[in-house]
Amino acid sequence: MSNTEREVHDAARRAKDAAADLAPMSRADKDEALAAVADALVAEAASIVAANAEDLDRARAAGETEAYLDRLALTEERVSAVADAVRAVADLPDPVGEVVFGSTLPNGLELRQIRVPLGVVGIIYEGRPNVTADAAALCLKSGNAALLRGSSSAYSSNTRIVEVIRGALEKTGVPADAVQLVPGSGRDSAQALMSARGLVDVLIPRGGANLIQAVVRDSTVPVIETGAGNCHVYIDEHADLDKAVAIAVNAKAQRVSVCNAAETLLVHEGIADRFLPRFLREIGDLGVTVHGDDRVRAVDDRAVPATEDDWATEYLSMDLAVKVVGTLDEAMAHIRAYSTGHTEAIVTDSQAAARRFTSRVDSAAVMVNASTRFTDGGEFGFGAEIGISTQKLHARGPMGLREMTSTKYIVTGDGQVR
Amino acid sequence: MSNTEREVHDAARRAKDAAADLAPMSRADKDEALAAVADALVAEAASIVAANAEDLDRARAAGETEAYLDRLALTEERVSAVADAVRAVADLPDPVGEVVFGSTLPNGLELRQIRVPLGVVGIIYEGRPNVTADAAALCLKSGNAALLRGSSSAYSSNTRIVEVIRGALEKTGVPADAVQLVPGSGRDSAQALMSARGLVDVLIPRGGANLIQAVVRDSTVPVIETGAGNCHVYIDEHADLDKAVAIAVNAKAQRVSVCNAAETLLVHEGIADRFLPRFLREIGDLGVTVHGDDRVRAVDDRAVPATEDDWATEYLSMDLAVKVVGTLDEAMAHIRAYSTGHTEAIVTDSQAAARRFTSRVDSAAVMVNASTRFTDGGEFGFGAEIGISTQKLHARGPMGLREMTSTKYIVTGDGQVR
Repeated sequence: MSNTEREVHDAARRAKDAAADLAPMSRADKDEALAAVADALVAEAASIVAANAEDLDRARAAGETEAYLDRLALTEERVSAVADAVRAVADLPDPVGEVVFGSTLPNGLELRQIRVPLGVVGIIYEGRPNVTADAAALCLKSGNAALLRGSSSAYSSNTRIVEVIRGALEKTGVPADAVQLVPGSGRDSAQALMSARGLVDVLIPRGGANLIQAVVRDSTVPVIETGAGNCHVYIDEHADLDKAVAIAVNAKAQRVSVCNAAETLLVHEGIADRFLPRFLREIGDLGVTVHGDDRVRAVDDRAVPATEDDWATEYLSMDLAVKVVGTLDEAMAHIRAYSTGHTEAIVTDSQAAARRFTSRVDSAAVMVNASTRFTDGGEFGFGAEIGISTQKLHARGPMGLREMTSTKYIVTGDGQVR
Repeated sequence: MSNTEREVHDAARRAKDAAADLAPMSRADKDEALAAVADALVAEAASIVAANAEDLDRARAAGETEAYLDRLALTEERVSAVADAVRAVADLPDPVGEVVFGSTLPNGLELRQIRVPLGVVGIIYEGRPNVTADAAALCLKSGNAALLRGSSSAYSSNTRIVEVIRGALEKTGVPADAVQLVPGSGRDSAQALMSARGLVDVLIPRGGANLIQAVVRDSTVPVIETGAGNCHVYIDEHADLDKAVAIAVNAKAQRVSVCNAAETLLVHEGIADRFLPRFLREIGDLGVTVHGDDRVRAVDDRAVPATEDDWATEYLSMDLAVKVVGTLDEAMAHIRAYSTGHTEAIVTDSQAAARRFTSRVDSAAVMVNASTRFTDGGEFGFGAEIGISTQKLHARGPMGLREMTSTKYIVTGDGQVR
């Protein structure tokens, strides 16, 4: 066992002890701790911005782009927004203790299945340092200890933010070890988290496809897979033309860098002549490059030829693959072959088509006459999200506080035996 | 890729196709298929018993015990009981389509979270061939394709049972490939299942601790861990003496080979003088060997000294570890150190002690004044169980048909965009 592995596993052990104390805490005590964290972030904003300046200097020296520097940068205003997000989490209902199932058994035993915290949640993330406070707040609210492993590029910012959070917790009933930054920032610290089976209850990777695949492959700790979205919009033969154009444009172009943006548009041949000219003009004017099949390219010569790769690509850019299909079933077969199971939408006025699509398309979210962009914890009314699960076990789709819980059965009797 | 791996993955691909057809099927169609399966098992009972005779011959030649042979043996009567169990599964409500959450969002989008099948469920099991039909029925009812990998000792029986099931399905709307026995019966066929990520949605190992640990360690397919139960009964200072003795005796001795049997008894020192003499006499008279600490051995000299190993052992035999503790918190600390998180019970008339125990003990089931033996899908009213999960992700405790489902969000609008 390497030094890093030993240090990370020691941190996980402390997190496990903290989680045991945190699990039975009342909502009032947890909310008070979150308020203290928010206040401390505001009070210590200057020192957090100073630590962030070190990260920015390193990033500049490494020749990172302006866009990268902007994502990394913290100002006192941004720290204040992070504190507001922590307060918003405090305002959400506490999922712990919710009774999800219950009955009185024939022998008089009273059975209740209630939500309990998962325990220790490890989060491996890239990018912006605001995720640090955000993830810590979601874990605390749901009664979980957080083991945070951010990117090395934000190490100084993350270190200071976690110091501030722990300092605030020390004045509350929540143990400071409920929020820890994983020691080290290299690949070995992530690996040490992945091998901490029995100490860490779940790992949630947040970031690009490479990070997520590495965690899924290497971790012996259970993983919730998040994120990759090769999302499809299918324009049915019976679609309302105005809605079809509006939804397809919005799904692709409203924000292209996010997992719920559409990457492939499938158009029924029965509506292609009316839909495609108008849609291709609008989307082309927005600067989107269309990768189309022959029938698409016959309508708009700006479209480039689509290859097999295009159907499988999550562009996250101003690109869109477009294909004409003969039937609803052909559209669904295409989706089944290429989708990552995130979100697919149908635009149709046919009840039969909508029903067939929603019952047969096997994705975390299936939209009827709505943009794929709505697959989001905030849009779904969860108040916050830790990520969007694209796996089928435990949680699927946007993960709010409920998805950060397990359950246990409490069975109360008066002497029953078998 | 070995031949076995290729064959198993090909079977998984066929299962995936079958699962896509099975997912949208109505309850009526699935129940009709289950009835056809039950009828076929009865009609083909003689050929199943004949296949079973081959397994029995091999087991006898290998010098297996009478108890082993009895567990392996099928008679026409036992086959008929298996068919009845399949019919009982048909009678259970269909979990697929159940709305678990829903709301109308401020923008008018209608959000529904509904239960859907997991897809392809791999089950790796040991022992009795009746599990084959049982697991297949639970998978079919919940809309999942079953990839069954039984023990090599029951290979002839399992092969014939699956032939009969598939033959019955061919006359129904359910594709025969929804139930398959994994090709081969060696270790490589189990390994091939564990590497079928993307083809198999979940693996459920059913059997001894070694099997389960091997699957958890080696599988890249998500696993639901089942079974190991180092269950504790804690007799609180404020326990009713009659109930305490009855529950402790029942939890240990009613059936010792099962995961919800008690393995360690913790007794508060304030009740030890009254409880222990009576309990140790009763349990000793039943033939249970007590592994006790010094205070237990001072009461009954039949007790043997408990070692550190005893606290950690799931005996599954007529053995019980017994320890006297000074406080409720000492009992909970012992449970936290040694429990496998299956089931723990407290016997107490104190509301405060019961509340502290149920809120702080982190196990799949926590019993108050009831035997640990009640942690069971049948006892909980689920009608059937595929196993008892001791992990925190996805399912925890007895797993019925609901736990064999995932969910998806269906969002219906009339043109909403962001």
